Amino acid sequence: MSQVTIEDIRAAAERIKGIAKRTPVLESGSVNRRTGRRLFFKCENRQRGGAFKIRGASNFIFSMTDEEKSRGVVAFSSGNHAQAVAIAAKAVGIKATLVMPNDAPKSKLEATRSHGAEIVIYDRLKEDREAIGRRISEETGAVLAPPFDHPRIIAGQGTAALELMEEVPDLDALVVCLGGGGLLAGCAVAAKAFNAGIRVFGVEPELANDYWLSLKAGERIGIAPPATIADGLRTTKPGVHNFPIIQSLVEDVLLVSEDEIKEAVWYLMSRTKMVVEPSGAVGAAAVLNGKLTGPAGRVGVVVSGGNVDAETLAEVLRGA
Amino acid sequence: MSQVTIEDIRAAAERIKGIAKRTPVLESGSVNRRTGRRLFFKCENRQRGGAFKIRGASNFIFSMTDEEKSRGVVAFSSGNHAQAVAIAAKAVGIKATLVMPNDAPKSKLEATRSHGAEIVIYDRLKEDREAIGRRISEETGAVLAPPFDHPRIIAGQGTAALELMEEVPDLDALVVCLGGGGLLAGCAVAAKAFNAGIRVFGVEPELANDYWLSLKAGERIGIAPPATIADGLRTTKPGVHNFPIIQSLVEDVLLVSEDEIKEAVWYLMSRTKMVVEPSGAVGAAAVLNGKLTGPAGRVGVVVSGGNVDAETLAEVLRGA
Repeated sequence: MSQVTIEDIRAAAERIKGIAKRTPVLESGSVNRRTGRRLFFKCENRQRGGAFKIRGASNFIFSMTDEEKSRGVVAFSSGNHAQAVAIAAKAVGIKATLVMPNDAPKSKLEATRSHGAEIVIYDRLKEDREAIGRRISEETGAVLAPPFDHPRIIAGQGTAALELMEEVPDLDALVVCLGGGGLLAGCAVAAKAFNAGIRVFGVEPELANDYWLSLKAGERIGIAPPATIADGLRTTKPGVHNFPIIQSLVEDVLLVSEDEIKEAVWYLMSRTKMVVEPSGAVGAAAVLNGKLTGPAGRVGVVVSGGNVDAETLAEVLRGA
Repeated sequence: MSQVTIEDIRAAAERIKGIAKRTPVLESGSVNRRTGRRLFFKCENRQRGGAFKIRGASNFIFSMTDEEKSRGVVAFSSGNHAQAVAIAAKAVGIKATLVMPNDAPKSKLEATRSHGAEIVIYDRLKEDREAIGRRISEETGAVLAPPFDHPRIIAGQGTAALELMEEVPDLDALVVCLGGGGLLAGCAVAAKAFNAGIRVFGVEPELANDYWLSLKAGERIGIAPPATIADGLRTTKPGVHNFPIIQSLVEDVLLVSEDEIKEAVWYLMSRTKMVVEPSGAVGAAAVLNGKLTGPAGRVGVVVSGGNVDAETLAEVLRGA
């Protein structure tokens, strides 16, 4: 039985409504014509902090006891989760320590610092960020806010699909990008609670296919650190809490190539005028390239974020 | 006395409501913090065809008599106006001929052709597109749909500000990009009709300062073809119908450098997650760089379009 229920997600939605935005749902004539389907994009690139991560981070932090809050929070992340933890911690007035790599984009370091968080820099090639995070947690008592592998993180991320299903209840399928599985697991629980017959799909880069391998094997399989341009999906192993939910509720994991991801980023930008980061474009990439089988229907696609740096976008444009 | 009244603009709004979208108005915390003002972006990059041009083109074409319609329409434009004329002509089932340069982006040529328009290619360096357009008009009887210098074009473009003022009536200032002056003239009439005290500003690239020079001189001054990255603002002389309206209603023309335009494109993209073309970013560039003087207040900024090709965006990113 799933550790996360629709009631947990509804409680999360109530808890975080002062900090997470209700993001818009967008349709595009060009996309619908190209795919022969009706796609409904849930625009988490317009979310606070530029990605869905604030949903899970604030649900986690706002659920902490007063005693836990007094000890502060620590997290390790190169990107969107770090910013989200910093924003949520600031909102409740507690200390946040973020373990970030020395090669993180300057803009992300500055954005995180601007929310009042303390940043501990580590060497991505030589040091283990999880070990640093755990050591800080042990030394200071700060609570570790995991990026995806926790029921409260999963419930928080599920509020994205809760909002989408409230707005477009009659979806035939839901397509969600898949890194650690926090967003997909939460969204699958929410979508199935609205409509038990909805088909739910995860999408991974071919280079980061740990879930695809794990679902085939029936157990959590780890892979070497993947080099995909989708930097938010570079996790190497499914989460302990995420995997069984995805195993029971998700129909299939679709795989997309690096070229398909880049083409989808530019296609979405030029047609919908939305800035989408590579990780946020993999769901669209799968549908745009015919990876989703079955009847045409109405398809929800979660666009998970829009935090793309100039260098990555330049790489996307070189193929355009 | 102005040749375009608020009644003309209201009539245009009624006429075009089936074809032009009511575009969203967007605020950004980052932009407000940087400028110390509250900015309200009217997002014409989300307009049909990716730019405001459909407003004027459809108002012009839908106002044609049946006899005129039977002769079809001809227009010359390298970009957004061509697409808008093609879309509006298709909507009323009349023939459209577009005179487009041989170096126009392939995507724009294809998009225009996909709407069923006939395209006549000319050599930008050797031939005069206006002369070609007039010759086609004389030979075929097709009605010339001017890009900006016509009361019905001006009234159509003014519907952008009409919608903005309906949604945010208490603006202190309105900032609009300025090429031929169709959008600015129409928006100035609409804004002043709502609030006689609103301060209205045009913004030009320093390299394309024909209005700035003309307003100083008190008469329409022509300049050499400007090399600004803002390709929609490369007009060389104010319109006959546009100039007197702008002279009487606009407080000042602000100038922005090429670097300021590029920085604004990337700033808007990274902070608001909107794709904005250089011409559409000059209004924001002026306010972001402190060119707008006076009390902080609430400022409307028209983001005129989002049709940027990969090459231009790559140029923007090289400075980011």
